Amino acid sequence: MLPWHTELAGRLDRHVISSELLRGNPLGDPHERPLWVYLPPGYDDDPTVRYPTVYQIQGYTGHLSMWENRMPYRQPFIETADQVFASGETPGCIVVYVDAWTTYGGSQFVDSPGTGAYHSYLCDEVVPWVDARYRTIVDRESRAIAGKSSGGFGAMITPMLRPDLFGALATHAGDNLYELCYLPEFGKAVRYLRDYDQDILRWWADFQTRPSFTKPADQTLLMVLGCTACFSAAPDGTPELPFDPRTGVLRPEVWQRWLDWDPVRMVERYREAVTSLRAVWIDAGTRDEWFLDLGAEAYRAELARVGVPEDRVHFELFDAGHGGIDYRYPLALGWLAHRLAR
Amino acid sequence: MLPWHTELAGRLDRHVISSELLRGNPLGDPHERPLWVYLPPGYDDDPTVRYPTVYQIQGYTGHLSMWENRMPYRQPFIETADQVFASGETPGCIVVYVDAWTTYGGSQFVDSPGTGAYHSYLCDEVVPWVDARYRTIVDRESRAIAGKSSGGFGAMITPMLRPDLFGALATHAGDNLYELCYLPEFGKAVRYLRDYDQDILRWWADFQTRPSFTKPADQTLLMVLGCTACFSAAPDGTPELPFDPRTGVLRPEVWQRWLDWDPVRMVERYREAVTSLRAVWIDAGTRDEWFLDLGAEAYRAELARVGVPEDRVHFELFDAGHGGIDYRYPLALGWLAHRLAR
Amino acid sequence: MLPWHTELAGRLDRHVISSELLRGNPLGDPHERPLWVYLPPGYDDDPTVRYPTVYQIQGYTGHLSMWENRMPYRQPFIETADQVFASGETPGCIVVYVDAWTTYGGSQFVDSPGTGAYHSYLCDEVVPWVDARYRTIVDRESRAIAGKSSGGFGAMITPMLRPDLFGALATHAGDNLYELCYLPEFGKAVRYLRDYDQDILRWWADFQTRPSFTKPADQTLLMVLGCTACFSAAPDGTPELPFDPRTGVLRPEVWQRWLDWDPVRMVERYREAVTSLRAVWIDAGTRDEWFLDLGAEAYRAELARVGVPEDRVHFELFDAGHGGIDYRYPLALGWLAHRLAR
Amino acid sequence: MLPWHTELAGRLDRHVISSELLRGNPLGDPHERPLWVYLPPGYDDDPTVRYPTVYQIQGYTGHLSMWENRMPYRQPFIETADQVFASGETPGCIVVYVDAWTTYGGSQFVDSPGTGAYHSYLCDEVVPWVDARYRTIVDRESRAIAGKSSGGFGAMITPMLRPDLFGALATHAGDNLYELCYLPEFGKAVRYLRDYDQDILRWWADFQTRPSFTKPADQTLLMVLGCTACFSAAPDGTPELPFDPRTGVLRPEVWQRWLDWDPVRMVERYREAVTSLRAVWIDAGTRDEWFLDLGAEAYRAELARVGVPEDRVHFELFDAGHGGIDYRYPLALGWLAHRLAR
Repeated sequence: MLPWHTELAGRLDRHVISSELLRGNPLGDPHERPLWVYLPPGYDDDPTVRYPTVYQIQGYTGHLSMWENRMPYRQPFIETADQVFASGETPGCIVVYVDAWTTYGGSQFVDSPGTGAYHSYLCDEVVPWVDARYRTIVDRESRAIAGKSSGGFGAMITPMLRPDLFGALATHAGDNLYELCYLPEFGKAVRYLRDYDQDILRWWADFQTRPSFTKPADQTLLMVLGCTACFSAAPDGTPELPFDPRTGVLRPEVWQRWLDWDPVRMVERYREAVTSLRAVWIDAGTRDEWFLDLGAEAYRAELARVGVPEDRVHFELFDAGHGGIDYRYPLALGWLAHRLAR
Repeated sequence: MLPWHTELAGRLDRHVISSELLRGNPLGDPHERPLWVYLPPGYDDDPTVRYPTVYQIQGYTGHLSMWENRMPYRQPFIETADQVFASGETPGCIVVYVDAWTTYGGSQFVDSPGTGAYHSYLCDEVVPWVDARYRTIVDRESRAIAGKSSGGFGAMITPMLRPDLFGALATHAGDNLYELCYLPEFGKAVRYLRDYDQDILRWWADFQTRPSFTKPADQTLLMVLGCTACFSAAPDGTPELPFDPRTGVLRPEVWQRWLDWDPVRMVERYREAVTSLRAVWIDAGTRDEWFLDLGAEAYRAELARVGVPEDRVHFELFDAGHGGIDYRYPLALGWLAHRLAR
Repeated sequence: MLPWHTELAGRLDRHVISSELLRGNPLGDPHERPLWVYLPPGYDDDPTVRYPTVYQIQGYTGHLSMWENRMPYRQPFIETADQVFASGETPGCIVVYVDAWTTYGGSQFVDSPGTGAYHSYLCDEVVPWVDARYRTIVDRESRAIAGKSSGGFGAMITPMLRPDLFGALATHAGDNLYELCYLPEFGKAVRYLRDYDQDILRWWADFQTRPSFTKPADQTLLMVLGCTACFSAAPDGTPELPFDPRTGVLRPEVWQRWLDWDPVRMVERYREAVTSLRAVWIDAGTRDEWFLDLGAEAYRAELARVGVPEDRVHFELFDAGHGGIDYRYPLALGWLAHRLAR
Repeated sequence: MLPWHTELAGRLDRHVISSELLRGNPLGDPHERPLWVYLPPGYDDDPTVRYPTVYQIQGYTGHLSMWENRMPYRQPFIETADQVFASGETPGCIVVYVDAWTTYGGSQFVDSPGTGAYHSYLCDEVVPWVDARYRTIVDRESRAIAGKSSGGFGAMITPMLRPDLFGALATHAGDNLYELCYLPEFGKAVRYLRDYDQDILRWWADFQTRPSFTKPADQTLLMVLGCTACFSAAPDGTPELPFDPRTGVLRPEVWQRWLDWDPVRMVERYREAVTSLRAVWIDAGTRDEWFLDLGAEAYRAELARVGVPEDRVHFELFDAGHGGIDYRYPLALGWLAHRLAR
């Protein structure tokens, strides 16, 4: 395998979308966003064929350009996704790469006064934009969403909120079961804040003045601050921590706002949407540093409980941590391609 | 410092106490228990003097003989405790070393159908036994309890339950703030149980057939099983896990039984007892693997909130993890010795 | 800072160079290689100005495309290098990005029957190619080489071997002091080989059949195999391990071949070349996982011993491990730009 | 298994031996040393029976009292050793527990101007003392030596130096293959010395003023200082480090003094003694933090090379690190008991 590049069998169109919903967002992030659309081989050959669409969203701190990053002995997903369709054994899909980055590193694909209307941007702007310009099959049964980590979270919740748009999903180590994936981070955060007078905004001010991730605190505090902005911002946008920054004691009403966004807890509330899903791919590494393998187990058990038939679900744990699992994405993409209506 | 032994300035009496309350305990553990009583220098010189008493209890998996273990470049607490009084600058105390070991590694010093009546044994048998045989000052204002880890937990809760007996305490890295100290263990436990068909009793059966602690699972699962037996046993003694052993999802009503034993949550419920405490020593290492430094902060904040005056509390975080902090015990003992009524 | 891209103030030309020396290399790697040449702002404005040149080489497993990888909250070196010159405060340099990747992950920038003639390719093909096409100052006093890790190694040794070409260098955490940076890897390698019948080529066969870096063994064994191919291949190209793959015992004559490539040991042998260097940047993180901070100290001490004046050396240790230190590269580049003859 | 104590089937005599050879030792350590002698069940029944003897020596920082330390769910070796003989299936041995502690934590069981004549003390004082007072079989074929870690080292070298005394040995994770077990420690030591002006004696001064092992540096620096005092002290006793304390570069002639004490390198030199051994037990954990599993492999390979027949050797790697492997000792003791001449 040569490391530098491959010619795609399909085609990748690189657009910029101008979002009305992100204009004037509270963090001052751009409302013009990159948006890439991949068309499978054959797309240009027969203008009568329409295709299912898979929306790909990214994990925390991801931004669109990172899809092109090259690693040793691995190809970027853009290329491995292309290979899924290149052989001809898997029916073609349009793949849409969506950017939902924020200054805090991410948006969790929700609407929040702390970050902006990223959920609406995705559902009400990106999807129609794509449907208007490409030969998609404009139907929930032919539309899926997929992602890893925070992207897996987005993939789980978006079809709950918008079953009219999405009928299938893939989550790789998606955020879930918050008492296991987030609580230990709060403990670490309190400790890191000792150097900042227990004030996360003092850390944030410091973070912006120096090379990023040069202090052990950076990773944890960025995630905590960013998720707080997404899940528990005040109406004026101020992030309200779900815990006391000196003791780590949970602030129950704020923490409840987080729990309301816990996919495993949302299943019951969005039972109807969930049971209408035609295909759900769930996987995670057995050593995931955020216990997202257990989150995956819990989410799957909850799907079963509310009545999602087993044959609509692919569940798999594999030997890995949270990182380096991009080789899983094309597996899910191929699986979805066979299951989306066409 | 020579490593082998020192002559004590005081005297250590080694007894065996026969407990009626532990007789027939559910784990079949012995009802005859070692009980050591330390008498400070001078005790035998003047038979008219009575002394305050400090009860020392141990952390999880501790049993009485371990107080004599010798480490390189450190003396056992039995000797450093003696040194507190040997100089003559600290007024003498009687120190009582209590054994509350069980087959599962500990009792958490509570009464439970899963392990036995260790709380009652301590309060209704050991204390009167000591008071009957030694020249103690028989008064809560002159009686303290101290310990590390699970022993710190015992030291926090016993004076809440029995303010008639104990008026002071010292907790070193005592169990507290259960969502931070216990929840991550549950996640680890679920993973370890994968090798045991998700059944903790299968692990327990395996554990008993081989050298202990030769599998990474042992430490975590022993603690989880033992605390379950202490905090959430069924009336017939069966340990009921506070989480689903496959998904890690909390079982709310069982988990609530644990939370009811969380010292930081108990303060409000035992407000009267807590505010009557005359001296409270709280410390922990800033890198405690179970976040017990945050537990300490939270407990201290709760004491302040319910009105314990600051001058009755010694609070200190120091650079350490959970292990190797035995050098803290004599500091607390000396502090208590000055504050107990005499 | 927006994450997606920046317009360069200068210009980056992307070429492919066809190497005669790499043609027919033993690993079957391509002899056509990407080669990027960066021209500083102003280059196109005045065709009479010539510039010093800095050759940038990469660490182990690096290939040229990885220079464009985007990380959260950081810009790629291509952009931060451009910013060094964009302000106008630092005099312009031509920066050449050289690819020396091999199937084993790297070439160490040496000529070896195990990998190919990468040293000669760099010195006898790339440098003349660049000098022929761009307005470089064709003089060792105006030519530097810089890199990190294995690239830092290459930056240290190339001017020793070819003082006619290079008069300055920058090494960031460059391989050095092999008993500390490599020996522990040999110990790990032996253990990992237990799953492969102690045969590294069996691991290599396995590695090529599955997603890379999904086994803990992969990182260590790849590096050991690759460095062996570079440092101690048999004349027919077969990698000869410097240790017994079952016991870890060093094979003295093979290990000596490695030590002959240890920069800190080479300084004495190439004393004349080394003392002729006009500028040497040395840095490393104080927590470098391969002890390359000590390697840096040792290399610097050896430079001093043979008589390199202190004012030609920049030495700096900073709080970091081996990873995430790309923000150091533009510091060295700016420093070199001021010191190269023009 | 009750945790507190067991009645021994045999008998343990606790003596103090007054050593002429240790009197006036350079560290001012006591020349009166505890010495324990265990007599198997039946010893007192028949005064005509003589027994083989196994000398047990300890790992670094070990002192005699630590043999009595009790751990949860494990019995001390004194008790498990007794159980080896209690059943009657293993023929009885006298077991001698020797103390060779020093202020620096250990003596490596060698004679050194830096610590004292511990090798001679063991061979010329302890052995005759025991033989004079107990019914041992006074013959090398009936005398073994055993230990773990530094004790395993002592067990390997003592029979090389004194084949007239010892004809068998057991080494559990004994120090071996110094480039793997010691070199990485030197790298760590240099880093830790940054806080001490690169002067290990400044660390030593600090270490003595505070609770031990409260700084991460303590463990590594103590071992480095102590082994230096044992292996490379100047004639006046000053410890001479085998590396430059700023760069980590080896000082070849000092390092060679260490290597001269590397068991795997000594085998060739003491070939005659080694091939005369009647029984050699070698084991180690596969994850030993000092690569002593590889040291074990290398030592075993060297024994085979010089001609020790395979049937005289027990070799075993097991799943463990360096700690917590005391359950291995009785296995070796039983094996030796069957092989010693009687």
